Amino acid sequence: MITIIILGAGNVAKHIYTAFTNQKSVRIIQCYNRKGVSIHKDQKKENITKNLRDLIEADIYIIAVSDDAISEVSDNLPFTNKLIVHTSGSVPMLSMNSVNRRGVFYPLQTFSINSTIKYSTIPFCIEAEKDTDRLLLKKLALILSPKVYDISSEQRSVLHVAAVFVNNFTNHLFSVGNQICSENEIPFEILHPLIQETAKKITVLDPDKAQTGPAIRKDNKTLQRHLHILKKDSQKELYTLLTQSIQSNYGKKL
Amino acid sequence: MITIIILGAGNVAKHIYTAFTNQKSVRIIQCYNRKGVSIHKDQKKENITKNLRDLIEADIYIIAVSDDAISEVSDNLPFTNKLIVHTSGSVPMLSMNSVNRRGVFYPLQTFSINSTIKYSTIPFCIEAEKDTDRLLLKKLALILSPKVYDISSEQRSVLHVAAVFVNNFTNHLFSVGNQICSENEIPFEILHPLIQETAKKITVLDPDKAQTGPAIRKDNKTLQRHLHILKKDSQKELYTLLTQSIQSNYGKKL
Repeated sequence: MITIIILGAGNVAKHIYTAFTNQKSVRIIQCYNRKGVSIHKDQKKENITKNLRDLIEADIYIIAVSDDAISEVSDNLPFTNKLIVHTSGSVPMLSMNSVNRRGVFYPLQTFSINSTIKYSTIPFCIEAEKDTDRLLLKKLALILSPKVYDISSEQRSVLHVAAVFVNNFTNHLFSVGNQICSENEIPFEILHPLIQETAKKITVLDPDKAQTGPAIRKDNKTLQRHLHILKKDSQKELYTLLTQSIQSNYGKKL
Repeated sequence: MITIIILGAGNVAKHIYTAFTNQKSVRIIQCYNRKGVSIHKDQKKENITKNLRDLIEADIYIIAVSDDAISEVSDNLPFTNKLIVHTSGSVPMLSMNSVNRRGVFYPLQTFSINSTIKYSTIPFCIEAEKDTDRLLLKKLALILSPKVYDISSEQRSVLHVAAVFVNNFTNHLFSVGNQICSENEIPFEILHPLIQETAKKITVLDPDKAQTGPAIRKDNKTLQRHLHILKKDSQKELYTLLTQSIQSNYGKKL
């Protein structure tokens, strides 16, 4: 039995609570947040505290608070030599106070779409100062998902940049597609299946091999016609730079 | 019963054959291609021709050849006043020869990932000079998919540009994410679930509302750190322009 305490009341804290609440090999024995609010409907009041001094003994303390607050919370813990982990994609492990044994338990997922998440598909990035702690965190993550990775703080910060490309920037391209459609009274939903296919394809094919379109074909006639169709300068600029980027990427490999 | 003849031997021709071959309300009565090859294992030899002069009578002639060849094939048809349609996303309907009744039957999908395609999820874009022809094409498309749209040639060319953004450019961002990962010995598969989620999200949420990340938050500290982490100038350039584009898009809406 692994005993855990969750610190925080945001999305990640709630999802971690929900994920572990029905697992037999884990017990969430206490939760802390500044306002002392419940983060799950099944939670017992006596297990919630708003005072760090009331924290009891546990195997793992999971600090699931905003990035800016992680270091401060770790500074104010009333004990030493316990395993404390944060859940952030971008905060270095060593930014937490060194009086405790430090680690990271980072579920790489956007926790916003709805409350029913298939935890078994979520990749967990694990890091710890001590090897025994790393193995314990791995054991904890494996309860939820088979996808558990040893990722250093440096790798995690790189992963965060890569995630900006494949998530934030990709979503922005969907926005631009949506704009272009609505400017011409075309329902954006026509493109939904293509978008799903684009995302699915790279799970079976390297994205470099999945690249298609006028840019990689160097089909200049189409490229010129597309630039002519685009109305906004910002759209033209994106089109031009992304086309150049595809062509230089592809050119190098020849 | 709708009788059709398929002209061409590429991916789209093959997929259209496969899609209609087991439908009771459609009969593929003949196929044409320059080499006279079979495009489906169940095809009878006597129904294949490599001579346009041998084409028999049908309700719809589907020209599924490369964009550049559409106009030429339409010029060489040995009949007039029949319904001829092409399947291209970017060729105007009127580029075909006007001696026949013209239309477009465009399945908006990438037909490359594998042979088992769920045709019911594919959007079909329909256009025709005559309203009765438009209704017949709609009827034909509805046999395969409930997603049938009236799209003019002008809208179709715009849709093609939007598709470049959400498909070609998006895939390129996946390539960049893959690059960043492999430069740092991180398995790209860690990002697969996030990519699927990103694509799924916009089917339930407008992409503008789904936008997250340091750019929209104007989190300059993170933006600077990310630019510092990126090694290649081309990556930095993309990061900078996409960030600016998100910020100006968001700024306008405030």
